[in-house]
Amino acid sequence: VPDRTRPGGRHVISLSSEGEFRLIERIVTRLRLGDDVVVGPGDDAAVVAAPDGRVVATVDVLVEGRHFRRDWSSGYDVGRKAAAASLADVVAMGARPTALVVGFAAPAELEVTWAEALADGLRDEAALVGASVVGGDITAADAISVAVTAFGDLAGRDPVTRAGAKVGDRVVVIGRIGWAAAGLALLQSGRGDRPLADAHRRPEVAYDAALAATASGAFTSLVDVSDGLVADLGHVATASAVSIRLTAAALPIDAEIAQAAEELGIDPWEWVAAGGDDHAFAGTVSGDLPQGAVVVGEVIPPGGGPVIGFVDRDTPVNRGHEHFTST
Amino acid sequence: VPDRTRPGGRHVISLSSEGEFRLIERIVTRLRLGDDVVVGPGDDAAVVAAPDGRVVATVDVLVEGRHFRRDWSSGYDVGRKAAAASLADVVAMGARPTALVVGFAAPAELEVTWAEALADGLRDEAALVGASVVGGDITAADAISVAVTAFGDLAGRDPVTRAGAKVGDRVVVIGRIGWAAAGLALLQSGRGDRPLADAHRRPEVAYDAALAATASGAFTSLVDVSDGLVADLGHVATASAVSIRLTAAALPIDAEIAQAAEELGIDPWEWVAAGGDDHAFAGTVSGDLPQGAVVVGEVIPPGGGPVIGFVDRDTPVNRGHEHFTST
Repeated sequence: VPDRTRPGGRHVISLSSEGEFRLIERIVTRLRLGDDVVVGPGDDAAVVAAPDGRVVATVDVLVEGRHFRRDWSSGYDVGRKAAAASLADVVAMGARPTALVVGFAAPAELEVTWAEALADGLRDEAALVGASVVGGDITAADAISVAVTAFGDLAGRDPVTRAGAKVGDRVVVIGRIGWAAAGLALLQSGRGDRPLADAHRRPEVAYDAALAATASGAFTSLVDVSDGLVADLGHVATASAVSIRLTAAALPIDAEIAQAAEELGIDPWEWVAAGGDDHAFAGTVSGDLPQGAVVVGEVIPPGGGPVIGFVDRDTPVNRGHEHFTST
Repeated sequence: VPDRTRPGGRHVISLSSEGEFRLIERIVTRLRLGDDVVVGPGDDAAVVAAPDGRVVATVDVLVEGRHFRRDWSSGYDVGRKAAAASLADVVAMGARPTALVVGFAAPAELEVTWAEALADGLRDEAALVGASVVGGDITAADAISVAVTAFGDLAGRDPVTRAGAKVGDRVVVIGRIGWAAAGLALLQSGRGDRPLADAHRRPEVAYDAALAATASGAFTSLVDVSDGLVADLGHVATASAVSIRLTAAALPIDAEIAQAAEELGIDPWEWVAAGGDDHAFAGTVSGDLPQGAVVVGEVIPPGGGPVIGFVDRDTPVNRGHEHFTST
């Protein structure tokens, strides 16, 4: 596959013209390895510290055309977003993220600079929590996909699962909700130049607040909101064999979101209750409220109604993102 | 997306008609969790034992149309093959595989039974080394891709890297070489019914021999042959700052391969020297020869020639698989 030259005349180096091994070299030189890395990229596998004697592990896959569009998001944006999805899952288990490995599939004609920007985004998002990109695999495919596996260390604590919510606990949210959904709506309506559209391109995850809260043992249960607040708290309720009642009036609707909703003539509540890509943390607490947490509901005994619902509003029809439904 | 009914009248349940959450339930019930699993599938992340205080981690991505074809390989085959690629990398670092997490992207219209068979294949290949599938992510995409991240435990030993080969070491191979390349050639020539074609569909990896050899500290360096014997031993030579001289006459050309080569009118040597998908183990030893190892060359001082070459034959032009080249 020969190099292409863009209409503007700029010379473009594609993945195929660069070749796999030089591409890997280009990417590896952009990474920075933290203290948890025992063996970094370049061998059959990486070796990462797991001082706790256990390792937390999770994977998320982002696919072009489903989770991002190249005309809306840069390679850097996609790197940030892909890393955030997995890092937030590690934090939601109560662990400190240590490392990422990345499976990257892309068309042979993709510009090398896009892949480099992706690596930069992965590196920078990981750096927010002190984690490093330690390995990966690159292969050709018709569309871009990025599979990020993240690891974490529990520092001797129990993992914070979905199954620990107790009747009487308060239900709390840490971090933005509704921003990514609002940003996507702006992009879909041709308003991608608004600052809020960046919330779709890459989330701003409340890692520090969530890490501090889990380190202090604040949560009885915790999830990363990836399918939507109602759907994910529904998972908590089911796993904990309790019911959850949310107060719609307590859900924070930030000014930026209210303004975008007004402009688009849309009720912002659906974004806040069912939007997924902000990677907020939702959980239950029995003791002191952790810093940055907003109380949005309470845990009640199971039975006598749906496992999740609102006391002051109908539950949204779209209870979360189903990747294979056509709706 | 409604269910489709095949021409034969068999009712087919697709991923989209089943929905993401029920699909995950279907898959999770097929898994079996071993002793290394602290928290299995169903939460934000899994928790896996890392008794050594370090964890070995690697990812490999298989893409439909590049690494497998659905008319040549079953879902089960692809699961076995995808797991093997990552498990072999863990073993090649000198570690015992403990767990897998899997990122799976697939078209909405894919039959659920294909995804279930994939999960069975991943589970069964992992079980060969006592590892478990502990988590994953499923998303829609135009083509199937499977990103498998594998973890392993070093049991207190140093990782066996590519950088440890010493002048005077013998170069050895454990496991099949050339089988997968021969199998692919048979499939490409319409002879997919031959038993050897199965070597492309799923490798038979010499896990036990390699695990026993690494546990006894036999290797000074070790790689999983995924790019081809010459290419991967070239990586060893470069990383170790030595040269490697192979003896072509010492490369085992198994009877099945010789027969397929004769039938296709092809020199089998290219399959053996440059074929990659068998996941044989190639390394260097300074002491006793481990069980199952075949000596194929020696480590010599650097300089005075290419880092990798044959003493009795020209080095093949195709020195390994480059995923983005068009050749």
